[in-house]
Amino acid sequence: MDKPLILICNDDGIDARGIHALACALDGLGELVVVAPESEQSAVGHSITMRDPVRAHPVAFEVPSGPIAAFAVTGTPADCIKLGCNRMLDRFPDLVVSGINQGPNTAVNVLYSGTVSAASEACILGLPAIAVSNCSWSADADFEIAGSFARQIAEKVLSKGLPAGVLLNVNVPATEAGDVKGIEITRQANARWEEEFSPRKDPFDRTYYWLTGRFVNLDDSGDNDLAAIDRGYVSVTPLQLDLTAYDHLDTLRSWNWESSAD
Amino acid sequence: MDKPLILICNDDGIDARGIHALACALDGLGELVVVAPESEQSAVGHSITMRDPVRAHPVAFEVPSGPIAAFAVTGTPADCIKLGCNRMLDRFPDLVVSGINQGPNTAVNVLYSGTVSAASEACILGLPAIAVSNCSWSADADFEIAGSFARQIAEKVLSKGLPAGVLLNVNVPATEAGDVKGIEITRQANARWEEEFSPRKDPFDRTYYWLTGRFVNLDDSGDNDLAAIDRGYVSVTPLQLDLTAYDHLDTLRSWNWESSAD
Repeated sequence: MDKPLILICNDDGIDARGIHALACALDGLGELVVVAPESEQSAVGHSITMRDPVRAHPVAFEVPSGPIAAFAVTGTPADCIKLGCNRMLDRFPDLVVSGINQGPNTAVNVLYSGTVSAASEACILGLPAIAVSNCSWSADADFEIAGSFARQIAEKVLSKGLPAGVLLNVNVPATEAGDVKGIEITRQANARWEEEFSPRKDPFDRTYYWLTGRFVNLDDSGDNDLAAIDRGYVSVTPLQLDLTAYDHLDTLRSWNWESSAD
Repeated sequence: MDKPLILICNDDGIDARGIHALACALDGLGELVVVAPESEQSAVGHSITMRDPVRAHPVAFEVPSGPIAAFAVTGTPADCIKLGCNRMLDRFPDLVVSGINQGPNTAVNVLYSGTVSAASEACILGLPAIAVSNCSWSADADFEIAGSFARQIAEKVLSKGLPAGVLLNVNVPATEAGDVKGIEITRQANARWEEEFSPRKDPFDRTYYWLTGRFVNLDDSGDNDLAAIDRGYVSVTPLQLDLTAYDHLDTLRSWNWESSAD
């Protein structure tokens, strides 16, 4: 097979350390092209830009083997994938890798994550896709460990493929290289944010709120993403984009529905 | 039981016709409180606002029985649910209803939909939630038919409840009242957008792009949301927020993973 074409994206923005670490880690695995947001787009969820136009401009981007094609986009991670696949690349990529995010994207956070939404958008387009997050929030977080796992997982996906409609969500624990115990295949944990809104007053005595909160793990089973990371494993969760609650179809059908509007 | 407390949200903005039609349709079913975006938030997906503060201000909102409490929020639909449940209401609501959206939220569009994300956010908080969309894009679309189905479905959910982690996504076909054939419980169709980016030049000769595209139904089974609507039925799809691709866990576990970083 020809050299695989690999599209790289993220949500922390094209200048973030994580996307550079990812591109460097994937260097040599194929032809790399970066299409990523111009600025940070965390927690944008699966937004797309429809009411405004989107712009893209080429930027310099170096990996160890030399410069690669890279474009900064004035839009969301999902926009980058759509625009990249339709305009920047001359064919659909063989693989899309999104990341490396600063901070975990586990449990219900996959719904808020721009990193995951880039991989989801690729999955919608029928492409094998991987989202990679580094669980460390530290400003000087090490991205090399996450990068080397991203490479291992990318190689597997290139050789074995993924079923249609399935993407991989990878979270690498914030530990030293020697402390990572390996890879675990996990479920999305059942957890949630218990929000608080911290009120402030502006100079005109009007209230505004900052979202804060505490992340609560409601899942005591061992095979979920949070548990694997806690034990020092890289968590790999296969995600699907068919949200149908199949187990509940029959119950709903048994409800006694009226056929008219009132 | 006390009068149920019902939180109403949408993504088209608090001044949209659809949210007024929804509140009017639910009038009398419980205590209604509206917490909705100040301005249109379509296609924001499951965004939350973290880098900026959020503001809310009370607005006038009338239903047939009189005025109800209503707040306009400078944020996304998910922000509205978080802020509403934590700050505007003195207890968690018994039901959250989001809509009525102008235009369908079917198939993979549930991922992009702000209407669905409001209901998803409620579901994350452990609340029964319904997203309602009117399939008509027409500026003078009739919202009464969708409203009366929203009321019927809200009554059912209040009396029967929903399992934890499951929300209902309702799409009402754009037909006359007498032409709606009833309610069908459906799956999320397998469909996607085939994007095009329409390029334009700004006055400085720089290119920008508008996202356009064609929605392609890849699903030829009869029990999906798109098919039900095409046949003139109201589609009710139970959605879940655990995205784990359970069927693929064993395959992934059988891959020959290396335990070290390289």
